[in-house]
Order: sequence, then structure tokens, then C-alpha cells
Amino acid sequence: MATGLPSYDEAATLIAAYSRELHMRPFATEVVGLRQAAGRVAAKALLADREMPAFPRSTRDGFACKAAEASSHEFLFLAGSTRAGDAPTGLLPAASVWEIMTGAAVPAGADAVAMLEHVEQVAGKVRLIPPRVLEPGENVVPVGVEARTGEEVVPAGSRLTASQIAAAAACGYSSLEVFKKPRVAILTTGDELVGVDQTPGPGKIRNSNAPMLAALVEQACAEPWVLPVVRDNGAEIETALREAIQADMVLISGGVSAGKFDLVEPALAQIGARVHFTGVRIQPGKPLVFCEVPRNESQAVPVFGLPGNPISSAATFLLFAHPVLSGLAGSNEVRPRFSIAVLTREVKGKSGLTRFVPSACAFHAVNEANPEVAPVNWQGSGDLAAFARANCFAVVPEGIDRLSAGDLVRILPFF
Amino acid sequence: MATGLPSYDEAATLIAAYSRELHMRPFATEVVGLRQAAGRVAAKALLADREMPAFPRSTRDGFACKAAEASSHEFLFLAGSTRAGDAPTGLLPAASVWEIMTGAAVPAGADAVAMLEHVEQVAGKVRLIPPRVLEPGENVVPVGVEARTGEEVVPAGSRLTASQIAAAAACGYSSLEVFKKPRVAILTTGDELVGVDQTPGPGKIRNSNAPMLAALVEQACAEPWVLPVVRDNGAEIETALREAIQADMVLISGGVSAGKFDLVEPALAQIGARVHFTGVRIQPGKPLVFCEVPRNESQAVPVFGLPGNPISSAATFLLFAHPVLSGLAGSNEVRPRFSIAVLTREVKGKSGLTRFVPSACAFHAVNEANPEVAPVNWQGSGDLAAFARANCFAVVPEGIDRLSAGDLVRILPFF
Repeated sequence: MATGLPSYDEAATLIAAYSRELHMRPFATEVVGLRQAAGRVAAKALLADREMPAFPRSTRDGFACKAAEASSHEFLFLAGSTRAGDAPTGLLPAASVWEIMTGAAVPAGADAVAMLEHVEQVAGKVRLIPPRVLEPGENVVPVGVEARTGEEVVPAGSRLTASQIAAAAACGYSSLEVFKKPRVAILTTGDELVGVDQTPGPGKIRNSNAPMLAALVEQACAEPWVLPVVRDNGAEIETALREAIQADMVLISGGVSAGKFDLVEPALAQIGARVHFTGVRIQPGKPLVFCEVPRNESQAVPVFGLPGNPISSAATFLLFAHPVLSGLAGSNEVRPRFSIAVLTREVKGKSGLTRFVPSACAFHAVNEANPEVAPVNWQGSGDLAAFARANCFAVVPEGIDRLSAGDLVRILPFF
Repeated sequence: MATGLPSYDEAATLIAAYSRELHMRPFATEVVGLRQAAGRVAAKALLADREMPAFPRSTRDGFACKAAEASSHEFLFLAGSTRAGDAPTGLLPAASVWEIMTGAAVPAGADAVAMLEHVEQVAGKVRLIPPRVLEPGENVVPVGVEARTGEEVVPAGSRLTASQIAAAAACGYSSLEVFKKPRVAILTTGDELVGVDQTPGPGKIRNSNAPMLAALVEQACAEPWVLPVVRDNGAEIETALREAIQADMVLISGGVSAGKFDLVEPALAQIGARVHFTGVRIQPGKPLVFCEVPRNESQAVPVFGLPGNPISSAATFLLFAHPVLSGLAGSNEVRPRFSIAVLTREVKGKSGLTRFVPSACAFHAVNEANPEVAPVNWQGSGDLAAFARANCFAVVPEGIDRLSAGDLVRILPFF
């Protein structure tokens, strides 16, 4: 079956290239307050509006001085003091020091700061305790060494972290331009599905994919657009897809495996899909379909046909749809963030497939053991009770027969 | 200086114990729709409302059969077909198979499913291709093996992931009870601070801590309550703290290092703080204060006095305040999630301190290298331009002289 299908690496490479190209498109932007910007993608580079630091900054509580004078170990006259926030003083007189706090401006004429803990103070005089000496520049950050005026501090395309919010604040951005959140249509198909608030009749199950995919989309900082469930009928699926492609991306789950009632692929063909792949050598999620459907003469919408069972849907979303969504969000990071952990139980590989095994990773405090991961016991990819006990997929690459307890293994954490 | 201060491990252990105790408090709850529940903490265990699966479920597209009959390799009569969502059929007749799709109910009388790929079909008859044989139970998930009716599927205190949203949906939870988000007061102090939209005068800097901490609190799924900046004046700090302790937790940044203008600790003493520690053997962030302030006779509010510079503030938030916030949110996971990566450049340790070095981690695709991390070049803990280039802290534990390129190092990713 798997012959001719791309490997995980091949599919991931294709997806990464596709997503990077998306990221270069001119997407719509909006201006948000700094407080709303965390997790959003910067549409423009953030620039330093002044030198960083704007004044020579002390990195210590102590005494601004001339390094050569201090290193003589003579007592020097305490000429005054500056706390953080005070305006810089005039020139430091000869044979003097100036008391200063961390973050404050070093007065002109001083070229170093002696740390509070390294000096002796006697009656208005201060000396560096021998044998310690000071080099010029010690404990002082010169003007502009962190960034020059106009220099890029945060590149366009960054998904803004708290550290970048802090940098944006320092550069005076009380609001900033971010890319609009992409809208993702979520279409679930299947005659077996009933609503979450219904009691499933014989042979039926509740639709868990729609809320799960909506949660994944939302946590990827995009906007889910959940469409009504579509029955297993080619014409209905085609109609629903025609509506769904008004979104920036489409996830349609169910109806893409080998069973004879599978209808999504023909419906996609009917609306002119250009298919990138109709399967990947992975487990779960092998029947994943990735294509583009033209919306008009110039635009095509990425569409993922996800396998119907929730674990396969989640795996293929995280592995492939999420990177494309990052590209559509204007982000310059379009790869899934695989982490690593120590395996605590053997896991077998599967010939010709990369396995993504639902697993539980335990994170430990810093000086204890490394993060440890073990597969959860499960009954195949429909087992949602097992899936709820997992917090990541552990990866067994294609061509690996088994991974043993103690091996370092890659994991893809859920969000 | 560091004598008498707890090590990182000691402080982290204290914080974890404190946070776990919080988690057992009865917090206020609210009911949210399933779509709004991702990232929130479940206030009650989620239970299976029926057997999981509710019917013997086929894990494959293929033919339901009796394993013994199929393993004879005789041609068996194709008695009918069931697709996912169809009601279960009657008893499977002898010497027959029943076509079935993944996820569908296996008819009574069948005890296995032969995969589509493993059979030969000729004119309404089907046989398992020799030498393959089937065991009873193969490719069938029996009723209730994933979870029994009433069994716990998601424990109370879980911060709900997409996989748990899926499980909740399968169990019929269209809405669920979660803990209310804790409210975190953010107080920034310092005469040197001006607003983000202002141009700093001589010796002044913009307040980057307030928006950074607000972003961190929000991304930790709590509610930031940013109070006005407080000047370096003991009485004003005390007044502000008395207001701030109406929140569930207080972050006050600035004014906790060794400088003589430090005023936070005396103000905390004034309002009856019970101090847990007034420093930790870490860099950056050594002057961190952790205490509890009584709000009334029965309640005490955790208060963190964070060092004023943003990198120290971020580090101490992620290491200590975030776990306490998780406890206040009712979460049963109250440890920071350290990950691991391969170091690509030497990092030195610091005698008597655990270092948390602002670093950039590159995440690679699955079959390539492990995640690789390198410290960013920086000018000390006020360097926000460098901080913006980092996406994690790399850890050099106390007692380690140096970590070399190629070593596995723990990292604490930003969010």
C-alpha cells in the first residue's frame, strides 16, 4: 500500500517549503495593543527607536569610578550618588567615586563600576579592596552596544514571545502591526457522527473531531470556523467544500482511508484540487491528503483531508497542518517543534512507516532526571481514553526496528 | 552573599510543595462550553458516560469473520456490508464474512476482522490469503476495554489539551466545569520608569516589565491586573501592595536587590508578610523574594518580589511564579516543563549559583538532528535586544564548571 507514498521526511520537507512560500505572501494585517500582541505574528520588523542602552548603564550596585584610580587601592572621595532614574550627573571629579545602582546611568568621566561587595567604605571615602583590580569598562554597558537607533530588534514574521513583548515595550511600541489570524474551516464527515450533546444510537459515535480540531486551531492562534457535519454523500461533501474554501485553510476529516465509502478525494477532484500527496508513510495518519483548491484565478486554498479517527487527525494536524497554518499566519517558523526525552519502555518500529506513538512525558525539576516518556497503553487510533492520558507523540523513525528503554527519543508535545 | 540562601533545587522543592497544597484548596469554578475549555483546568473528573467503545469496534477496513474459519483459507460467503455509522447487523451466519469499515460495529458472531489488503475476493466470496492466519480478537476492540461506564477519563486538575477535549466530546461533555482563572496583580516600581508611549528623559527607561509580565500571566491562562507604576517610596509601595493583595497572587517587580533604595522588603514586612525566602542561588534573579501576605484571618496571598530587570523578572516568573500560578489555577501539574537540547557552544557555570542563560534553541524536523541550543550574546540582564533573540533559558546547574558543545542541556522554553 505504502509504495509510492512519500516518507515522513519527504512530506515534511514539501510542507515546510510550501509553508515558507506562504509566509512571503502579503497577508492582511491589523494593529493591536502591546498587551494583545503575545502569540501574534509581527507583520513588520520592530526597530530600536534610540540607542540601547541610551546611556552607559551600570550592571551593578556599587561605585562608578575610573578603573585606573580604583585599581591603585587608594581611598577615593565619595562625590555623590545616583539611583536608577536619576538624571546623569556632571563629570566625575578626579580621585572620586559616585555611588550608583544597577540600571543607572554611569556619570561622564567614570569608566567602570566597582561592586558594592568589593569595596571598603570609611567616612565618606571608598576604596577597592586589594588585591582586586578593575578593568576599564567593567560593569558598564556602553551606549548602543545592545542595539543602535533604527536597528532591527525583532524580525518581521516572529511569533511574539514575552521576551519580544518586553523588547517592543523598550522600543516604545505601545501598539504594533500583526498579521490577521488565518481562518480555518473545519468540516467533519461521516454518517456515524452525532453531536456531542446527543446520545449515540447503535453504531454511532459522538463527533469529537470538530471540537478537538477547533481547540488545536485556536491554540495555534488561528480562528476555527466549524461547519455542520456532512453526511457520507459525494454531492453534499462537494457543496460543503465549495463553502469551506472561503476560509484560508480547510481541514476535512473522515472519508480518506481505503474503505469503499470514502468520498472526499473524488469531491476534491471535482472542485479542481491540485493534489500534493494522498498518503504519507506514517502511523497513525497514513491516508492523509494534502492538496490546494483554486478559489479564484489567483488564489488557491490549502486543504487537508485528515483521517477520521481523532488520534490520526491530531497527529496529522500537528505534523502537517500546523506548519502550513504557521505559514498562513505569516510566521517565519514553519516546522513542528520536536523535543527530546528519555524513553522508559521499549517501542517497536513499523516497517516502512514512521510511527507517532501517543505517549506520556513526565517533566522533572532541573537537577533531577531528564524528561522521561513512555507510550500509553492503547487500543488503536480510536482509543480516546488512552489519548486523554497522553501529552505527546513519541517518534519511531522509519527504518528503526525498535527503540529501547534509556534511548533518547523525539517527542512532539500536544498543545 | 549567597550564604544562607536556598539553592535552586531547594527553592523549587519548596515552591512545588506550596503549589501542590494550593491545588487542594476549593477554588471557585465556572461552566464553559467545550470549545472554550482548551487550556483551562478541569474542576471535576470527566467520566465515561457509556462503555468505550460502546460496541465491538473494527480497527480496520476489511471483513468481519470468525478467526478459525478465516484461518482455514476456505472461500467464505460475503453475507453483507456495514459501513461506519450503520446499526449493527444480526448474527454473522456460519462460513460467512461481513464487509466492514474502520470504526464500524463488528456483527455478533464475528470475532476478528481480516484486513482488506490480506484477502482475495472472487465473485461474492472472500478468503484470507495463505499463509496468513487470524487470531480471535484480531483488529477488534471489545466493548468497554478503553473505559467502563463511570470510569474516570480525565482527572480533575488537568489542564485540558486537545486530546482531552476530544475525550470529553466522546463522553458527551458539551460544556464542563473549570476553575476560574486566577487574577494576578502586576505592580512595577521604580522612579526610572516611564510609560511605553513616552520618550524616556535622561537616566529613564520605559516600563517593559508590566507588559512582559502581563503577557506571561495571560499565556499561563490567568488574568493579569496591571496596576499603575509605583514610585520608589516606602509608603506608596505599601499602599499599592495593600490594594494588590485583593488579587489571587501579586508580582511586584523592582526594589528587591542590594541597593540602598530598595524598599519592597520593608513594605512587605509592614503588611505582615510571612517570608519563605529572600533570595535564591540563581543567576539571573538571585534577589527574588517569595512570601505570603495575610488578606484576612483565613487567607494569605502569595507575593513574589521580582528583580527589576526584565530578564531576571522573566526567569523568576517562569521558574517560581508560574508553578504557584498553576497551583492557584487548580492544576495538578505544578512544575516548570524543562526540556532538553544539545548545546552547540560552551557555557560556563558560576560558583555557588544555578545559571539560566538566555539562549536560542533551533528545532529541527524529525529525522534530522536533535534540537540545538546556544546562548545568545548579551550585555547582562538588562539587554532586551539580546533577550528578544532568545527563546529559552539554558540551565547550568550549581556545581557544574562548564558545559561543552555537544552536551545535553536542560532548557526552559519561553512562552
